[in-house]
Amino acid sequence: VTALPDNAHVIAIDLGGTNFRVALCDARGGIVRRVRHATRPEEGAATVIARMVQAARELEADSPNVLGVGVASPGPLNPFTGVVLYVSTLNWRDVPLRDELSRALGLPVQINNDANLAALGEQQFGAARGHADIAYVTLSTGIGCGVILGNRLVLGARGLATELGNTSVEYNSPHNYSGLPGALEGLAAGPAIAALAQRALAEGRSSLLRELAGGRIEQVSAREVGEAANRADALALAVVNHAARVIGIGIVNLLHLFDPALVVIGGSVALMGEVLLRPLRDTVRECAMPPYQSIPLVPAQLGDDSGLLGAAALAWQAHRP
Amino acid sequence: VTALPDNAHVIAIDLGGTNFRVALCDARGGIVRRVRHATRPEEGAATVIARMVQAARELEADSPNVLGVGVASPGPLNPFTGVVLYVSTLNWRDVPLRDELSRALGLPVQINNDANLAALGEQQFGAARGHADIAYVTLSTGIGCGVILGNRLVLGARGLATELGNTSVEYNSPHNYSGLPGALEGLAAGPAIAALAQRALAEGRSSLLRELAGGRIEQVSAREVGEAANRADALALAVVNHAARVIGIGIVNLLHLFDPALVVIGGSVALMGEVLLRPLRDTVRECAMPPYQSIPLVPAQLGDDSGLLGAAALAWQAHRP
Repeated sequence: VTALPDNAHVIAIDLGGTNFRVALCDARGGIVRRVRHATRPEEGAATVIARMVQAARELEADSPNVLGVGVASPGPLNPFTGVVLYVSTLNWRDVPLRDELSRALGLPVQINNDANLAALGEQQFGAARGHADIAYVTLSTGIGCGVILGNRLVLGARGLATELGNTSVEYNSPHNYSGLPGALEGLAAGPAIAALAQRALAEGRSSLLRELAGGRIEQVSAREVGEAANRADALALAVVNHAARVIGIGIVNLLHLFDPALVVIGGSVALMGEVLLRPLRDTVRECAMPPYQSIPLVPAQLGDDSGLLGAAALAWQAHRP
Repeated sequence: VTALPDNAHVIAIDLGGTNFRVALCDARGGIVRRVRHATRPEEGAATVIARMVQAARELEADSPNVLGVGVASPGPLNPFTGVVLYVSTLNWRDVPLRDELSRALGLPVQINNDANLAALGEQQFGAARGHADIAYVTLSTGIGCGVILGNRLVLGARGLATELGNTSVEYNSPHNYSGLPGALEGLAAGPAIAALAQRALAEGRSSLLRELAGGRIEQVSAREVGEAANRADALALAVVNHAARVIGIGIVNLLHLFDPALVVIGGSVALMGEVLLRPLRDTVRECAMPPYQSIPLVPAQLGDDSGLLGAAALAWQAHRP
């Protein structure tokens, strides 16, 4: 850190299917300036990338000394080659995102997937600051994960590691998700939580959820389930407890395989808060091996910025060997 | 490597509940001399350690230049502090094995658990030679695992990582193993395979297994199941296929979490060979994400020596920074 000039910055990019965000960041995780643009994937990868380049150039003009760029992208992607393998929401396939950005900007570019960089953001600047060994789990439409051991992201041979959402917790499940029976993401992510609540409502069970959804059962999402659970609605609590049990077993597996010192829980589903975290901790206490039973499970602190700040941290890491 | 004198050796120790083995090893995984002694844990940790020290001293006399000692021990243990936390087969608890050996021998001692060192042995000298990113799974009385990424063992914050046998593949299982429902080790290790076969036999199903066990159903172990399966016995094949399905899902989880380039399968249960490996590969091809569907699943090559040679590799690593 001391070797870096005080006026140095990096540019962080967080690419999503709806929007992309670009920020000029300092070494402490501070955001000097930020912009957000619509991704408009229907215009094609080249146009999306050109728009990212233009936004980055505008921010670059605000700093006398931009050292590099970090990019959080949906995956799967290969962080070693910088190629995004395929992203259905963008309709991308084998896009050499890193090299195209680097050529256009004339700056070194580092890239990794959004879950890994959210983990890095929380570890560098958020809920896991000061810990060298952590796991980050994001619960939303899917279930994503990043693991940092010895201050380094666990990437694997091709950078595809830590796909917790795609691990099975029910080998003989009738629910098959991308070929894998009982995949955690299929059983317990936001859509599964919504489906479970909708099924119970369709059976005629009474619940505050009917009111929250204006009587339209198909409008019930994980957000309403969280809201109703926080208002002590019995059906919503049962649904949340079931999801927490399943996710909790997935987290026990994660603990036993990676031995982190702390687990950060992020993502939109986790915004329901303690009503979800409490039964998650109960499952870990009940089912994990003794050394893990009181491991801290804490909420993420950076909200929507975890991936963006992780991208900044990744760009900084390239200058701090 | 080139910096090491040609006549240098290390001492490797493989500690088990019944026997311990000590070997004088060269840098290529060659064993110059080896001895085996009964462990006799009932005599207490101090006596067992004294006997290991004596055996190591005798081998040390055969080399002009012993650089250090590597020890494979049952776990869980902390490789950073060198303390064996607890081992029921030895009746050990919080034994500072590394420091006691180091003090007595006057040599640097490295220690890790047997599954991790079997992984290292196979990666340095066996079936995974030349691969920087591998997983090793041992199937016997339990299910053990070691993972190497970027040529380094994945250890976690306290060195307890990669406990694959203690991950759940059935979150709502009635079978609870050390508190964890549906733990892989409880569902599919050797004793589970034997129990499944015995149950089917008790229901009166006909099988070669009756003959192999001399008519005594309770004598049927995973070994007989493997033998009968290799002779195309229908019941034994069904049992092996079921176990392979469950283990295969556990391996898919391992792949999705660590992204190794190769998986080595060892342990006594794996000695049944292709009759087990074939359905394991089928499960991976069917259930893993596309990048993993044709990942090599290969048998271990070092047999009983994988842990011993891994201990040697660990000792060498301390001299090759």
